[in-house]
Amino acid sequence: MPEHPAFSVTSPDGALRAALHRKIAGKTKPLGALGQLEALALQIGLVQQSLTPQLRRPSLTIFAADHGLAQAGVSAYPAAVTPQMVHNFLAGGAATNVFARQQGFALQVVDAGVNAEFAAALPLRHEKIAHGTANALHQPALTAEQLQRCLRTGQRIAHEEVAKGGNVLAFGEMGIGNTSSASLLTHLLAGIALADCTGRGTGLDDAGLARKQAVLEAVVRRVGAGPHDACRALREVGGFEVAMMTGAMLGAAQKGALIIIDGFIASAALLAAMHIAPAVRDYAVFGHRSEEGGHPPLLAHLQAKPLLQLDLRLGEGSGAVLAYPLLQAACGFLNDMSSFAEAGVSGQDGQP
Amino acid sequence: MPEHPAFSVTSPDGALRAALHRKIAGKTKPLGALGQLEALALQIGLVQQSLTPQLRRPSLTIFAADHGLAQAGVSAYPAAVTPQMVHNFLAGGAATNVFARQQGFALQVVDAGVNAEFAAALPLRHEKIAHGTANALHQPALTAEQLQRCLRTGQRIAHEEVAKGGNVLAFGEMGIGNTSSASLLTHLLAGIALADCTGRGTGLDDAGLARKQAVLEAVVRRVGAGPHDACRALREVGGFEVAMMTGAMLGAAQKGALIIIDGFIASAALLAAMHIAPAVRDYAVFGHRSEEGGHPPLLAHLQAKPLLQLDLRLGEGSGAVLAYPLLQAACGFLNDMSSFAEAGVSGQDGQP
Repeated sequence: MPEHPAFSVTSPDGALRAALHRKIAGKTKPLGALGQLEALALQIGLVQQSLTPQLRRPSLTIFAADHGLAQAGVSAYPAAVTPQMVHNFLAGGAATNVFARQQGFALQVVDAGVNAEFAAALPLRHEKIAHGTANALHQPALTAEQLQRCLRTGQRIAHEEVAKGGNVLAFGEMGIGNTSSASLLTHLLAGIALADCTGRGTGLDDAGLARKQAVLEAVVRRVGAGPHDACRALREVGGFEVAMMTGAMLGAAQKGALIIIDGFIASAALLAAMHIAPAVRDYAVFGHRSEEGGHPPLLAHLQAKPLLQLDLRLGEGSGAVLAYPLLQAACGFLNDMSSFAEAGVSGQDGQP
Repeated sequence: MPEHPAFSVTSPDGALRAALHRKIAGKTKPLGALGQLEALALQIGLVQQSLTPQLRRPSLTIFAADHGLAQAGVSAYPAAVTPQMVHNFLAGGAATNVFARQQGFALQVVDAGVNAEFAAALPLRHEKIAHGTANALHQPALTAEQLQRCLRTGQRIAHEEVAKGGNVLAFGEMGIGNTSSASLLTHLLAGIALADCTGRGTGLDDAGLARKQAVLEAVVRRVGAGPHDACRALREVGGFEVAMMTGAMLGAAQKGALIIIDGFIASAALLAAMHIAPAVRDYAVFGHRSEEGGHPPLLAHLQAKPLLQLDLRLGEGSGAVLAYPLLQAACGFLNDMSSFAEAGVSGQDGQP
């Protein structure tokens, strides 16, 4: 898969780095005083290949799907919640709807493989691969053909968002059981011990967590220790929404768009994308650090420091959308703040 | 001073707490999944005494002043930067101007005591107490009369912001040398060891930091170990902008407005305000945690967990303004998100 030309990604040209550094250092503030926003402005400038980057038409795409593994009791919620939440998204009533409206995000919901029928007329993007994945306890969650469809559909969706004028794409997910997929992917691809990347998801108690850990260990025994490439891992442990998000991240980076990464599941999708095309990392801004299971060690593995740490554990792209004003702030200071010379303000050397 | 009726503050009535908890718990998300935003929504609801709180006319008031102690070499920047930055604020070119415009904040700049003359026609609020404080190495930075003027002016400014329709007030500061005031206040009022609350300010090197620490130790030797009440501490170590901000925080809380706390210096002003009227704490939302000197231990003392941690060390109210979208998000989910019952979504018990 790493050699697959359809998903190749090129890193942004670094030639602009020195000029961006100089522009940031010349602003009327102590050197480095805008902290993470300075690194963010540098990244956005490089991705857009511009000293005056502009964010255009931010969008959130939520991929929803069900997981065969949910039958093994890995979630505190019944699988029926996945289609219920899809309807909630379509009605505009979920947290991420509220945040997306506040931040001016275009929002679309994709049925990547929910175990329910949706009326064709619903304002839903119908990309259903199947009615939920196979149960990864007993067999690969996805067939090879399903995985390719997921990756290509996600890629196409991202390309379309860029064609609509967007240059900053956030991706969310909904799928009862999908923290299990994320934990397994993190274990298989980042080599982090399974116990360190398994958490309570949306609220398992101690007994539920022990059951989830036992189920995930059984999946790993079936799959084998690896190392596995990204496509093998995605096929084995799913899910449809995770793989489609992986394809969407690759597609966004191919078109030079920024990607805002939400929480643990989106980070696992990025991990898989990086195993397919490492340069996708250069386009990724990390929105939120959750305390869910494997997110802190996965972030450490990715050398990522998210913009927010609000103890969210919701998914749906919520942490990505909430971080967007900080991307605006980074572009804002880079574009609109005065330099020492413009403002006649003295620097540390006493000279403007 | 604690007995001074002019600055008394009443805590919000807690009777609404249970209803706010129920409303938050009924939203279509796993219990607690919005993390810090849930605590924030609860606080805002209590402050506004409403299940449907609304943020109105956010404003940022920047207090600027100079410090006699700056003559002792406690800053990496020359004192001339204070009036230069005032002009930069008035021209709209500082970081905080950019962020305030992006977030729709009304912004005013107050000359609380800058060591420079400003033309009367400038769009500046002229409340100059003196051309900088006295040098706290040798005498109290403020006279008793100056302190009272600062507190009353700040209070009046906050009352006016509320009269203009605002219910969320952010305060920023500019004053070369003012991290020294904040460190000394933190030491004198919170009892934190001086070494633990002294930092590099806007960028001191090791030798500069050692010099600053020696200067602050000399100030403490002159002032005496205490304990001191808030007014004694504010008089001894200043500055005008810090004391005026203290008065403004008290004034905002008196009128039931939310206060967004910026970084170390604003937190020190709040500490002083809490020593005058402890209930002011109930109205304070912490915007940003900086790594500057005493901020982490002071936040621990205040049992405060700021919304952002972006390694900013700028002041000017920047961290307060940048946190504002999260206040909007907290109100947004409380007001506009569906409940399980409304959306027909199953909870952990499988029932909507």
